[in-house]
Amino acid sequence: MSIIDDIGTIVGARYIETGPDFGRFGRDWSGALRWTPLAVVRPASTGEVAAILAATYGAGVPVTPVGGNTGVSGGSLAEGALMLSLDRMNRIDAVNAGARTLRVEAGAIVANIQTAAEDRGLIFPLTFGAQGSAQIGGALSTNAGGANVLRYGNARALCLGIEAVMPDGRVMDLMSELHKDNSGYDLRDLIIGAEGTLGVITGAVLRLFAQPRAIATVMIACHTLENALATLNALQAATGNSVEAFEYMPDVFVARHMARMAGARQPFDATYPVNILAQVSALAERDAAPDDAGRIPLHEHLAGALADLMGRGMIADAVIAKSDAQAAAMWARRDAAAELALCDPPFYSADVALPLDRVSEFLETAHARVASVDPKAVPLWVAHLGDGNVHYTVRMSRDDRGLETAIVEAIEDVVAHLRGSFSAEHGVGTFKRGSMARRKDPVALEVMAAIKGAIDPKGLMNPGKVLPGS
Amino acid sequence: MSIIDDIGTIVGARYIETGPDFGRFGRDWSGALRWTPLAVVRPASTGEVAAILAATYGAGVPVTPVGGNTGVSGGSLAEGALMLSLDRMNRIDAVNAGARTLRVEAGAIVANIQTAAEDRGLIFPLTFGAQGSAQIGGALSTNAGGANVLRYGNARALCLGIEAVMPDGRVMDLMSELHKDNSGYDLRDLIIGAEGTLGVITGAVLRLFAQPRAIATVMIACHTLENALATLNALQAATGNSVEAFEYMPDVFVARHMARMAGARQPFDATYPVNILAQVSALAERDAAPDDAGRIPLHEHLAGALADLMGRGMIADAVIAKSDAQAAAMWARRDAAAELALCDPPFYSADVALPLDRVSEFLETAHARVASVDPKAVPLWVAHLGDGNVHYTVRMSRDDRGLETAIVEAIEDVVAHLRGSFSAEHGVGTFKRGSMARRKDPVALEVMAAIKGAIDPKGLMNPGKVLPGS
Repeated sequence: MSIIDDIGTIVGARYIETGPDFGRFGRDWSGALRWTPLAVVRPASTGEVAAILAATYGAGVPVTPVGGNTGVSGGSLAEGALMLSLDRMNRIDAVNAGARTLRVEAGAIVANIQTAAEDRGLIFPLTFGAQGSAQIGGALSTNAGGANVLRYGNARALCLGIEAVMPDGRVMDLMSELHKDNSGYDLRDLIIGAEGTLGVITGAVLRLFAQPRAIATVMIACHTLENALATLNALQAATGNSVEAFEYMPDVFVARHMARMAGARQPFDATYPVNILAQVSALAERDAAPDDAGRIPLHEHLAGALADLMGRGMIADAVIAKSDAQAAAMWARRDAAAELALCDPPFYSADVALPLDRVSEFLETAHARVASVDPKAVPLWVAHLGDGNVHYTVRMSRDDRGLETAIVEAIEDVVAHLRGSFSAEHGVGTFKRGSMARRKDPVALEVMAAIKGAIDPKGLMNPGKVLPGS
Repeated sequence: MSIIDDIGTIVGARYIETGPDFGRFGRDWSGALRWTPLAVVRPASTGEVAAILAATYGAGVPVTPVGGNTGVSGGSLAEGALMLSLDRMNRIDAVNAGARTLRVEAGAIVANIQTAAEDRGLIFPLTFGAQGSAQIGGALSTNAGGANVLRYGNARALCLGIEAVMPDGRVMDLMSELHKDNSGYDLRDLIIGAEGTLGVITGAVLRLFAQPRAIATVMIACHTLENALATLNALQAATGNSVEAFEYMPDVFVARHMARMAGARQPFDATYPVNILAQVSALAERDAAPDDAGRIPLHEHLAGALADLMGRGMIADAVIAKSDAQAAAMWARRDAAAELALCDPPFYSADVALPLDRVSEFLETAHARVASVDPKAVPLWVAHLGDGNVHYTVRMSRDDRGLETAIVEAIEDVVAHLRGSFSAEHGVGTFKRGSMARRKDPVALEVMAAIKGAIDPKGLMNPGKVLPGS
């Protein structure tokens, strides 16, 4: 009996697809990367995942787990591999409102988890563009970030426990609901972020948080990034660390948005080099309850802090959204980033992280280095400034692989010099394995390879991802 | 040349001690555990640590790293091993106030790090009893907890990057200052909490936080733990998640404190089954600035929330400290826990964690199970209720190893049934290896053993700790 037949017996024949057309399982989100898997299997339970991996391990068949397939680093490339889709394992348990935890299966869609929390007056804070189709298993496997990492941390920080099936089919139960647990090595955080190369996440215990009582969205103009960072620290001090998002758009971004998007407006009457979209939320009821005149204390307080900063010359202008529609328009500008950056091929897009106080130096140096490689290149960037994550895209003067490599190296040189990371929130996948080889601490690479060899000795789990030379 | 001579050449002869009297390096904090190391070496730099481990790896000599030696789980037991003390590597770099980070060497004392942060108007929140002599390397190696995990997380959450020397002397540089970094497996969090069994932490990048503008310390009486948990959630909602500590002392604890400690006072006029010490801090200036009458808004607001809870019958009484001396007296009662629990041998002391909403069930069931094993046993407990961590001590009726084992098993049965952890914040060390074998997920144990074998194939790093059978 073939491995396909074996697996069909495990899940039922209708839940294994053998092509020739694999639809969304044969390409990545952008459609630029295409592959032909051996088959796609859609198990219904952890037991089925375990049986599948026991079979593939025995037969020496490579396996690529896939969630919503929304990654941008080629992490689900599965040429010749069995794709293991978690989409049928989408159960979301009842919210434990007392302990503020939620148990889910790996295939649960992030937006559905958010809704389940909100239905009980709580939030699951993980928020990113693809949340409507991304699955929590994939979000954990890539340690997804997003716009509110500043306040709530990455996906890893939002997860108390996981269940994972190891490469040979053993089930590892780490479904802890605990806030303190020191019982041996931190295998949870090892599997999280491993992009499916050490096993398959099948379930998770997530942390929930109090729903904000009031939200304020504001656009802030600064003359320098140094002033912007000082403004962030001042707003944190004024609001008791309540800043959720602090997103930086340069003047060139605003100009491109105006030029390309119908109905786009300038954020301010004048143009400024640094445009910040900040969101502040209050958890305390007293900051949300309007006074007799309908004023929300949070908004009043924020206005006072901004006026003070303006008086000190730290900020040049500021506009607080007066309605949900105004706030939505502010976010729409920021959310257009992917479209604006990626509408003009050929381009290279870097997802890098810097120490908070080195972003300005990164930009200046990167612009110069890129210009020395390709004088006609046009950089465009946007940043989660509150956590140092810059999305830096370069429109190249010509479609030339050698030129692209030179640009990548130039940007990475600058990042390395400033002790940043060449991989902030999009993961390594297929695309950044070369960067791993060039830029990651060599001893760390050796230790990763040793761990991979110990946990997946046959090298069957999501081969060709994360580790160089794998 | 002997290994001792080799190492003497690396560090200088005055920094290697060969006995016969090893002083504090020949026993644990309590003095109950004693051992004779091969020698104690005190390197001055990461380079020296690397050279020492290269030598011991070549010679097959076991190594036990030691920080302040304040652990309570036998993690620094070093019979026949080379003890590697980090105490000379105690440099604390200048605070980066903009990025709120601090680079330190592993031997820096936790209290000195706190002071360095405070000198710049910031805080390093890690707070626990032994902070005056505990070193940050040890605190990270055991993923130390403490009273404010509720707000700031365990030691792991307070660390952005580490430097570690691997068992064969290779130096792994993960000294990231970044808030987003997905460049391969999370080796930082694997080494943190590994209790020195995978290598030696030699440096760290720590996170700093804004200094609270105002602090309120309060004693709260409740009739039930359910009411106490509801009170915690209500205070979090009222103060915007500003509760730093929520410590539970039962009536028997208060009674023992009164009986044993000179000058001890009752927290309330009446006695209550649940006595909570809560600390709330405000980060926003407006919550700290006193009005014309000298009233602190934080205190006013907390008083209002407590009055509301009293009106709803959730709490029976409450006292807000009116002075630093009153607050100190409240904390002195809580801080007497170790002395009160450990002054009456023979006893067994469990450090367990429960889901937040199962603490009450744990206590009821544990009392009954322990009584069935030893009807004359007297339990005493205190809990970091906000993070589910219970320190549960049983004074046994007689000094009997078999009886102790039966009590341990009874408590662990209850913990396992409630999906808690037998090891919350004190680590596994030597003492809890049996519990690891009995209670940890068997697949997790296999994966841990595989990782240990891959990273430390000769089994030389802190042998006999954490993993069963090692």
